[in-house]
Amino acid sequence: MIWTVYLSGEIHTDWREQIAAGAEAAGLPVEFTSANTYHESSDAAGDFLGKPENNFWRDHQSSKVNAIRTKTLLEQCDLAVIRFGDKYKQWNAAFDAGYCAAMGTPYITLHDEDIVHPLKEVDAAAMAWAQTPEQVVELLKYVTA
Amino acid sequence: MIWTVYLSGEIHTDWREQIAAGAEAAGLPVEFTSANTYHESSDAAGDFLGKPENNFWRDHQSSKVNAIRTKTLLEQCDLAVIRFGDKYKQWNAAFDAGYCAAMGTPYITLHDEDIVHPLKEVDAAAMAWAQTPEQVVELLKYVTA
Amino acid sequence: MIWTVYLSGEIHTDWREQIAAGAEAAGLPVEFTSANTYHESSDAAGDFLGKPENNFWRDHQSSKVNAIRTKTLLEQCDLAVIRFGDKYKQWNAAFDAGYCAAMGTPYITLHDEDIVHPLKEVDAAAMAWAQTPEQVVELLKYVTA
Amino acid sequence: MIWTVYLSGEIHTDWREQIAAGAEAAGLPVEFTSANTYHESSDAAGDFLGKPENNFWRDHQSSKVNAIRTKTLLEQCDLAVIRFGDKYKQWNAAFDAGYCAAMGTPYITLHDEDIVHPLKEVDAAAMAWAQTPEQVVELLKYVTA
Amino acid sequence: MIWTVYLSGEIHTDWREQIAAGAEAAGLPVEFTSANTYHESSDAAGDFLGKPENNFWRDHQSSKVNAIRTKTLLEQCDLAVIRFGDKYKQWNAAFDAGYCAAMGTPYITLHDEDIVHPLKEVDAAAMAWAQTPEQVVELLKYVTA
Amino acid sequence: MIWTVYLSGEIHTDWREQIAAGAEAAGLPVEFTSANTYHESSDAAGDFLGKPENNFWRDHQSSKVNAIRTKTLLEQCDLAVIRFGDKYKQWNAAFDAGYCAAMGTPYITLHDEDIVHPLKEVDAAAMAWAQTPEQVVELLKYVTA
Amino acid sequence: MIWTVYLSGEIHTDWREQIAAGAEAAGLPVEFTSANTYHESSDAAGDFLGKPENNFWRDHQSSKVNAIRTKTLLEQCDLAVIRFGDKYKQWNAAFDAGYCAAMGTPYITLHDEDIVHPLKEVDAAAMAWAQTPEQVVELLKYVTA
Amino acid sequence: MIWTVYLSGEIHTDWREQIAAGAEAAGLPVEFTSANTYHESSDAAGDFLGKPENNFWRDHQSSKVNAIRTKTLLEQCDLAVIRFGDKYKQWNAAFDAGYCAAMGTPYITLHDEDIVHPLKEVDAAAMAWAQTPEQVVELLKYVTA
Repeated sequence: MIWTVYLSGEIHTDWREQIAAGAEAAGLPVEFTSANTYHESSDAAGDFLGKPENNFWRDHQSSKVNAIRTKTLLEQCDLAVIRFGDKYKQWNAAFDAGYCAAMGTPYITLHDEDIVHPLKEVDAAAMAWAQTPEQVVELLKYVTA
Repeated sequence: MIWTVYLSGEIHTDWREQIAAGAEAAGLPVEFTSANTYHESSDAAGDFLGKPENNFWRDHQSSKVNAIRTKTLLEQCDLAVIRFGDKYKQWNAAFDAGYCAAMGTPYITLHDEDIVHPLKEVDAAAMAWAQTPEQVVELLKYVTA
Repeated sequence: MIWTVYLSGEIHTDWREQIAAGAEAAGLPVEFTSANTYHESSDAAGDFLGKPENNFWRDHQSSKVNAIRTKTLLEQCDLAVIRFGDKYKQWNAAFDAGYCAAMGTPYITLHDEDIVHPLKEVDAAAMAWAQTPEQVVELLKYVTA
Repeated sequence: MIWTVYLSGEIHTDWREQIAAGAEAAGLPVEFTSANTYHESSDAAGDFLGKPENNFWRDHQSSKVNAIRTKTLLEQCDLAVIRFGDKYKQWNAAFDAGYCAAMGTPYITLHDEDIVHPLKEVDAAAMAWAQTPEQVVELLKYVTA
Repeated sequence: MIWTVYLSGEIHTDWREQIAAGAEAAGLPVEFTSANTYHESSDAAGDFLGKPENNFWRDHQSSKVNAIRTKTLLEQCDLAVIRFGDKYKQWNAAFDAGYCAAMGTPYITLHDEDIVHPLKEVDAAAMAWAQTPEQVVELLKYVTA
Repeated sequence: MIWTVYLSGEIHTDWREQIAAGAEAAGLPVEFTSANTYHESSDAAGDFLGKPENNFWRDHQSSKVNAIRTKTLLEQCDLAVIRFGDKYKQWNAAFDAGYCAAMGTPYITLHDEDIVHPLKEVDAAAMAWAQTPEQVVELLKYVTA
Repeated sequence: MIWTVYLSGEIHTDWREQIAAGAEAAGLPVEFTSANTYHESSDAAGDFLGKPENNFWRDHQSSKVNAIRTKTLLEQCDLAVIRFGDKYKQWNAAFDAGYCAAMGTPYITLHDEDIVHPLKEVDAAAMAWAQTPEQVVELLKYVTA
Repeated sequence: MIWTVYLSGEIHTDWREQIAAGAEAAGLPVEFTSANTYHESSDAAGDFLGKPENNFWRDHQSSKVNAIRTKTLLEQCDLAVIRFGDKYKQWNAAFDAGYCAAMGTPYITLHDEDIVHPLKEVDAAAMAWAQTPEQVVELLKYVTA
């Protein structure tokens, strides 16, 4: 079995690359999926359909185009890793966690200790809490052994 | 039909009371449900089972006790109102929105204009975005007419 | 058992009233639900949230507010009656039929013989095709006997 | 991942071919499925079982044979494109859109601006509205990147 | 809890009445539902929509009108009793049993010992096999105690 | 797409072989699945677990062993062909039809005209009624084209 | 909202009565359901259908009659309490826990500390672990407040 | 079709190896999946995330890491074999059986005759009861033939 792992959340650090490199080094039977992680092109995802002048509708249109991709990939994954960094609101990451919880798809969180309290509901429905990409790789090794 | 409306999110302002008062004044066939909105008792929800010394596990235990209530009420509602205020992380509100989206339960968001951009994924899956409790009451009037 | 019957489609004739009157005269254990059938207020359903200048987004916003109501009522009905008249496109009626088909909710169609051919896919997934409101009442009598 | 895209609706123009050509030119990981798009053979799909004299039942029989194919392909697609042209009723296209909406399958619409208003309910449940086959190809590029 | 019990199958003997009488005598919290059990009116259920000359389509039309009722009641029951008598094919009874099995709705069978072998697949998915209406009443007493 | 077609029902004639031969001759992208069609070995399917003396329990044990196979294959098929011959009760065939109906899996029936009336409920939920294996092959050609 | 709470497991102590008394004393909006808790009548639940001589089949028959009740009540509860005492195997209690987990129904466990290790998988999918009936009552107070 | 068979339960004897060897010798189209069967590494599955001092939380953390694997493999199998040996509580095996029952996944049990009575509920929802690994292999031969 090849495990499909969706990587959700923070796009400003290289945690995705670290996990992918670790998994490759270990030869794990894992493939990773993800939203578009380029901020600007993600914000402009719907502009080719005609860019609305109003910011709310521009965001709305682009987010729905992005959601075609993210919803499909999230629904097809075997496991999701939800990453919360120290910047920005990252509500989309928490949204993905809730989506997984409702579907019964297992997910783990990846975040520092100082945000344990505000993330308590998200962690309570998770299968594990990791603090480093190395731990995520360790977990993937164990799960796919 | 009595509509059951789950009120999720911010607990530091009186938006729930404003909506409830507006609905009552208008005689709407609506009943409201909600998580425990008292911060301290919510954090201590699981302490009667033995309070873990470690903060992570204390939060974990309490959050799961709270989830018995919130998950049940959220799954039974006809409509959810997800409120984002100007303080705190409010990841649980975004989590609830994702949960609704996956279940196919309609929800609306209630937040100011200045957080339209970070909430774009949450708004994209919502049925409407309101900026004031009065608009929510207006919406409930229309929907339940 | 009280049967909940959703009446979908044409809003320019009094077919809903005829069915309701017939059901009441016969004392049937039936309650009817429906979308907002007033054209203007339906088109303006979302305007209280701020009326978008762009027609597409105004329609979009209003349609989603209407959908909170229609989706909920459609999902809760035991039977739907889908009416196609001789005017307008009535794509929302066909949309409701497809929605019912996917959910496994039984529906019947109500339309004249001259549109049998273009409605063949919609009729093929229906439980019956009626040509008059009287026939619908007859069917409700039989089904709820 | 190979994306399966169902192309529903209008059969009198070459929009399917344009999209397929654009996707092939771009080397996209996409495969297209569709109903039988030949009008006459579609109408006669059930005749080999014995052709009913009555038009309603002939249409009924053929539509159900067609539905074996369309229902299966629609349920297996990752994304549907629903096309509305300027002729005919095209209720089957709206029916497919409703079917997707109820299943939670993402779909986009493809139509001119002059039918935005009658299609508002169908568009409201869609992930995007495109006006040209080129925009659809653009969207497929983005989503499958 | 009031248990809803669907009584499916044979219509030429009074087994339904015997069970209902036994349940009433024992004051059980049970309500019974059933298809239309009058053979002639059942066969003519769709004739008010226009009686097709062809027998197959007449049966087809009537069966679908009947199915609005039976499918709804079958899907809403807590328990089904499937009765096979010594006459006729009774394929609709076996059909109902398969429908229950797929939904996960518990059902029991009621039939004589001499048809144990041809009913083995139907009995294998049942929760119990009874040979008399008295045994069915006994079972209802136990289950609803 | 390879279509998986489950062949259910009568085991005393060669209808399965005729359909398979026709499909192979036409090079159709179809694979067929089926229950164990050997009467004696099917009846003895559970005997290796210890043969119960009582006939009911022997049938019960064997039928459940058979059901591991049939339930799995039935749930995985894209289309089922349900065959009713002129002998025996064939309640398992009607059971399979009901199972398909509840799952939303399309099925067609294959039977002579003289049993149209007792099969009316089973036919009403079917997508087509064929009278010969040749017609079934014809249908598979059309559906998989 | 009245919460329905299913009480599963140990039948040799009065833990059910303690919880019910505590809930009643506190006036909680809770109703309790349960399997038949009388050992002998439970073992004999199917004997009225004819008592099989073979022990396996007698148990089989009785367990399925019991399952009509337990499966229905378990599927209808809002919360289950799964009790493990210090005697017997209690595999049915663990079975009920697994059933709840698969359905997404929240459950809590009630057991002493010395069996924490063998129950770790069952506890891992639970929303809480209580050690006394008083704690269960406390939890019900909080959840239904 | 390759059948995926999940082997759940007892980890102190070589029943898994016996079944696998028998299946391989017979060239069966079967692949086996399983939880981590090494007791110590299973108990320590979550320690790399930080080993909680409290035994309950250590078990909790490890069990959830294990559950990522077991839940996924259990949900993907076509058939489960649930083994109960003569030692230990083996509540996780009964939990897996309940999980399968709720999902509708067929499972068989493998255990000696002396524990028929305490396993009656688990056996009642099973498709077969085997007493030896050889019988399981026999069953796999029959089912996959």
